[in-house]
Amino acid sequence: MSTMIFRGNERITALSPRDRGLMYGDGLFETLRASGGEIPWWSLHWRRLQDGARRLGLQMPDEALILEAAKTLLDQHPQVLKIVLTRGESGRGYLPEAGPGTCILSTHALPSPMPRPLSLHWCATPVARQPVLAGMKHLNRLENVLARRECADAGHAEGLMSDSDGHVICATAANVFLYADGQWHTPDLSLCGIAGIARARLLDMLPEIRIGPVTRMQVEKAEAVFLCNAVRGIMAVHRVGSVSVPGHTALDALQQRFLGAHPFFAEM
Amino acid sequence: MSTMIFRGNERITALSPRDRGLMYGDGLFETLRASGGEIPWWSLHWRRLQDGARRLGLQMPDEALILEAAKTLLDQHPQVLKIVLTRGESGRGYLPEAGPGTCILSTHALPSPMPRPLSLHWCATPVARQPVLAGMKHLNRLENVLARRECADAGHAEGLMSDSDGHVICATAANVFLYADGQWHTPDLSLCGIAGIARARLLDMLPEIRIGPVTRMQVEKAEAVFLCNAVRGIMAVHRVGSVSVPGHTALDALQQRFLGAHPFFAEM
Repeated sequence: MSTMIFRGNERITALSPRDRGLMYGDGLFETLRASGGEIPWWSLHWRRLQDGARRLGLQMPDEALILEAAKTLLDQHPQVLKIVLTRGESGRGYLPEAGPGTCILSTHALPSPMPRPLSLHWCATPVARQPVLAGMKHLNRLENVLARRECADAGHAEGLMSDSDGHVICATAANVFLYADGQWHTPDLSLCGIAGIARARLLDMLPEIRIGPVTRMQVEKAEAVFLCNAVRGIMAVHRVGSVSVPGHTALDALQQRFLGAHPFFAEM
Repeated sequence: MSTMIFRGNERITALSPRDRGLMYGDGLFETLRASGGEIPWWSLHWRRLQDGARRLGLQMPDEALILEAAKTLLDQHPQVLKIVLTRGESGRGYLPEAGPGTCILSTHALPSPMPRPLSLHWCATPVARQPVLAGMKHLNRLENVLARRECADAGHAEGLMSDSDGHVICATAANVFLYADGQWHTPDLSLCGIAGIARARLLDMLPEIRIGPVTRMQVEKAEAVFLCNAVRGIMAVHRVGSVSVPGHTALDALQQRFLGAHPFFAEM
């Protein structure tokens, strides 16, 4: 069995076609790396889910219950667990009613490894600025879907997305970091983008990092660029658009430290 | 029976928890007014659904099949039909795979009538500018959900939403029109907002209307303001925030013409 659905704390067998997750993308999700039946970053993901649920006003299920269900699903040691939390079922109309949320757990194989060398597309699909939703891993992800298709059409496995002012925000399914002038930089996500869990772990390891606006020119002139997410860890970037990224020992050192702290990413 | 689900042109019994409509809001919807088992604006809604599907790259089911299913659902004369079209089921990951879409039909009662006099809230939740998605009635509707909750918290049934530049775009579930200086005005929706079917019908009736940026001050100084959607038709507005709307015979005349052309809205 690879999927379980809960309505509040009650196990149910099928998803209602009137679930607000489907009707309006009214919910959140988490994609967690599992290893040997364990979920090393469970607490971080659960906390982000709680934060998002508080911002959107969603009801959370019981953590122990969901963790136990997740462990059952991980019995065969799949390496990816996905949690979707929605506002649950309701009638037609945007007005949210208070009621139990829907929580869907599913397990997945690791995705195919990223091509190496990794070359990124510059996505034309922008990331819309929406401070009310910024940072959250919510279910309104049409932008990412369209940008990801653009990458595929251009023959790339990933690409960088920028906001309406041309500031680089993220990859379609990862956060982005760059090294220039002896310093790490990563985009500010207070207006848009998803504040990833791998990003948060890396910010802890890089207390001197500059979080601020990142321009396309900064990316093109960077000495090292990498993407990161909670499934793949750090992905070194070798080319962005038509520009080669030279690489820097600071990235090699960071990758070593990161793998040392989180060895399960070596399985990728 | 009040719900039918199709996978492509094949009737299915349950919605997959891996449907991309749920996972990413990767789809579209239409809300259609029905009357006496008929759907007066079917062709307009279907055409908008086709336009959106082309923009997103979704596969459409057969029109005759879905219309026949809709007519079956409308046997008991419910007055609202909702169509949700998604990209269908897929594995994890944003990349869309080509495959049959999911089409969900459901019927609903008319919503409660709008309070009269109708007073609008100024929503703090902005509408994000996203030209790639502008105009479409897609499933990424968290903004509308949050704005609608704001209205309810403030004791209002509806409210006006503005973009990041302060331009008024729409109500949470309706388009907005205003009358000032002898002329009708309605917001330009090329950067954000949903291009409603009732709006399109009204644009046909008002060839002299000005479609352009609309400021909050223009709304507050307007002689008449109304909202419109395909379920409720024209809703005259009597107050916006703390400002009373005086009203104008141009609105009375428009309402009469509109009801004359589309008499089923008199049932509301």
